[in-house]
Amino acid sequence: MTTNRLEAFSDGVLAIAATLLVLDLHVPNVHPGMSLAHELGREWPNFAAYAISFATIGIIWINHHAMIRRLREVDHTILTLNLGLLLSIGLLPFTTAAMAAYLNRTQGQHLAAAIYSGSFLLMSIMFAATQRHILFPKAHLLAASLTEQDRRAILRRGVTGLVPYLVATALAIVSAYATLAVCGAVAVFYALPRTTADTAPTRHE
Amino acid sequence: MTTNRLEAFSDGVLAIAATLLVLDLHVPNVHPGMSLAHELGREWPNFAAYAISFATIGIIWINHHAMIRRLREVDHTILTLNLGLLLSIGLLPFTTAAMAAYLNRTQGQHLAAAIYSGSFLLMSIMFAATQRHILFPKAHLLAASLTEQDRRAILRRGVTGLVPYLVATALAIVSAYATLAVCGAVAVFYALPRTTADTAPTRHE
Amino acid sequence: MTTNRLEAFSDGVLAIAATLLVLDLHVPNVHPGMSLAHELGREWPNFAAYAISFATIGIIWINHHAMIRRLREVDHTILTLNLGLLLSIGLLPFTTAAMAAYLNRTQGQHLAAAIYSGSFLLMSIMFAATQRHILFPKAHLLAASLTEQDRRAILRRGVTGLVPYLVATALAIVSAYATLAVCGAVAVFYALPRTTADTAPTRHE
Amino acid sequence: MTTNRLEAFSDGVLAIAATLLVLDLHVPNVHPGMSLAHELGREWPNFAAYAISFATIGIIWINHHAMIRRLREVDHTILTLNLGLLLSIGLLPFTTAAMAAYLNRTQGQHLAAAIYSGSFLLMSIMFAATQRHILFPKAHLLAASLTEQDRRAILRRGVTGLVPYLVATALAIVSAYATLAVCGAVAVFYALPRTTADTAPTRHE
Repeated sequence: MTTNRLEAFSDGVLAIAATLLVLDLHVPNVHPGMSLAHELGREWPNFAAYAISFATIGIIWINHHAMIRRLREVDHTILTLNLGLLLSIGLLPFTTAAMAAYLNRTQGQHLAAAIYSGSFLLMSIMFAATQRHILFPKAHLLAASLTEQDRRAILRRGVTGLVPYLVATALAIVSAYATLAVCGAVAVFYALPRTTADTAPTRHE
Repeated sequence: MTTNRLEAFSDGVLAIAATLLVLDLHVPNVHPGMSLAHELGREWPNFAAYAISFATIGIIWINHHAMIRRLREVDHTILTLNLGLLLSIGLLPFTTAAMAAYLNRTQGQHLAAAIYSGSFLLMSIMFAATQRHILFPKAHLLAASLTEQDRRAILRRGVTGLVPYLVATALAIVSAYATLAVCGAVAVFYALPRTTADTAPTRHE
Repeated sequence: MTTNRLEAFSDGVLAIAATLLVLDLHVPNVHPGMSLAHELGREWPNFAAYAISFATIGIIWINHHAMIRRLREVDHTILTLNLGLLLSIGLLPFTTAAMAAYLNRTQGQHLAAAIYSGSFLLMSIMFAATQRHILFPKAHLLAASLTEQDRRAILRRGVTGLVPYLVATALAIVSAYATLAVCGAVAVFYALPRTTADTAPTRHE
Repeated sequence: MTTNRLEAFSDGVLAIAATLLVLDLHVPNVHPGMSLAHELGREWPNFAAYAISFATIGIIWINHHAMIRRLREVDHTILTLNLGLLLSIGLLPFTTAAMAAYLNRTQGQHLAAAIYSGSFLLMSIMFAATQRHILFPKAHLLAASLTEQDRRAILRRGVTGLVPYLVATALAIVSAYATLAVCGAVAVFYALPRTTADTAPTRHE
């Protein structure tokens, strides 16, 4: 299989998962004496979770492209790991809906937050596992030769990307809002302008 | 990242957002003594909002392609701005559903209309911001050299495209129907045959 | 705009519309004393409408590709007509759901059938209009030179494709089942093996 | 039609069907005195069916690419058979939802399981039929010449792929859990690392 096909299918799943997130935004049914503005305001967890998940999928898309671009050809293990990565991304509309539904509730709040950042963590683990397989056991599949040092540096940045989601998932025990804040901060951090591409910690690996 | 990948992912989100709009059209459940024709007729705001949103996504797709086609390569800021643009487009099935649900209600009508045209306005702002970044701070990323005058003219047309949505959003205070009419008029205006591409005010920027 | 971009976006809308049709298939909720087999059997209009709509979208996809392949470049009118075509295809999950919901009802049956085949008719009209614009007013956009006679023959086959849907829509007054049968027959007819591509009435135009 | 277009459209349907599976995962509504963890745990059939269906679509995508890659050009019968294959894949979000909804019920359990593995069986039959047409009646469409022996071996592997789903469907009479286990085992089997591509029973045909 060519890397083009792998990218096209992956792009499809990423674009669809991102766009399906909108189904978690509900038009409230306002009865006399209620205010649409107030009801929409109460849905702020839905809007926050939508924006954070959309941005996170966007970031993984950028990183995914950088990872696949390094490949000369694709083997069975890469295909399998990549499918695992896509499966975890396909879950995001569900975990985002869970976070949005439970953030402001007194019950289930902590578990929903753990599921939310846990799905980002799972996605990051699958990403790092795919990257590790590409860079080390199957380095001969790489398009350009990279030194051992380069490859270690790329993988280290990929693994570093797990840490915020690990922290966010652990924080779910304390506060679901803290979990949401950390996940949002990661997205904002990636969106910040960068001086040089090389100093970026995990972007473009 | 190549412009091809950027276009493929953007096309995916645009095509999915446009096609998901159909989920806002509901098959009415008609009970004895009711007429299906009558019930469907009452859903005209859904059909109008569907057609206008679909056409608007189509127009942004045409303009998006013209914008990206000018690029030689893509930098981090373009990726981020483009993700912001896609995030705003991904909201359209929600804002369209809100408009359709509230257009004929006495309560919430004005806010729903403001949200509807406001989402088009947000989309246009993200578009103009992406275009400004491409044409000015990062002009060296352009595929062909454009004179300062050309670039100013392209950006001016992009910014001009904001105006109708700004008007439509302001009109929401007065009448939700006026907002819908202005958004619809923009779509019809773009669909009109043109004598030459260059005289087009905002098409192909 | 290149024909590649036009095809990619159109393919996206077609593939999504076809796949969204599955949302019209509902898993029935069976209570004690009811049979799942019986309840699924009662949903046969949903399965029939799913299969016919999916096949019809597949056929329009094949024909769409043949039409676009003849183009050397794309102008504003082609883009607009193509968007109109995609808008009509985007409606199919809704019109299919309407047909499935009302086929076995005593009320609304005829209107739902007219809407169903009417959406296929609208799609065919948009297709023929796009084709006419490509073949005649803008023949210089064609990739290869076709004789006037060839172009007339292609257009005639495209217009001929309207006829069954016109008949099916007219039959809706008499019987919704007849409408469904005609729409299904068109799909089966296209799927039949062909001796030579040239004798095909409307396939590949 | 080029094989590229065929692949692009097929990839679209496959990616969308896989991503729509997430709509079968429901965020439970937990009332006071209930536990979110407990309610999510009760939804395990949904998660299991999601994972197995996603993986199965991924496997068919890999095999589909290997099949189409062998083609030099596409004829009408291939297009028709491929549309039949896509139609069967488009059903999977529905059959997956049926399996998830009925696995733990006392009524309808066996039928739902038969529908689930039956949809995989239908997909495999459509796949083998497409492959048979490519390899035998239309061997001149192949990109590279394959000996009669090679072609028989490829087809045999494709047909062998039917067997587990046939077994799973038969087992539905006995136990829906057994059906789910067999379908899951097929997915796990494909995901296992392989020593050489050629010894793979059905992968890459």
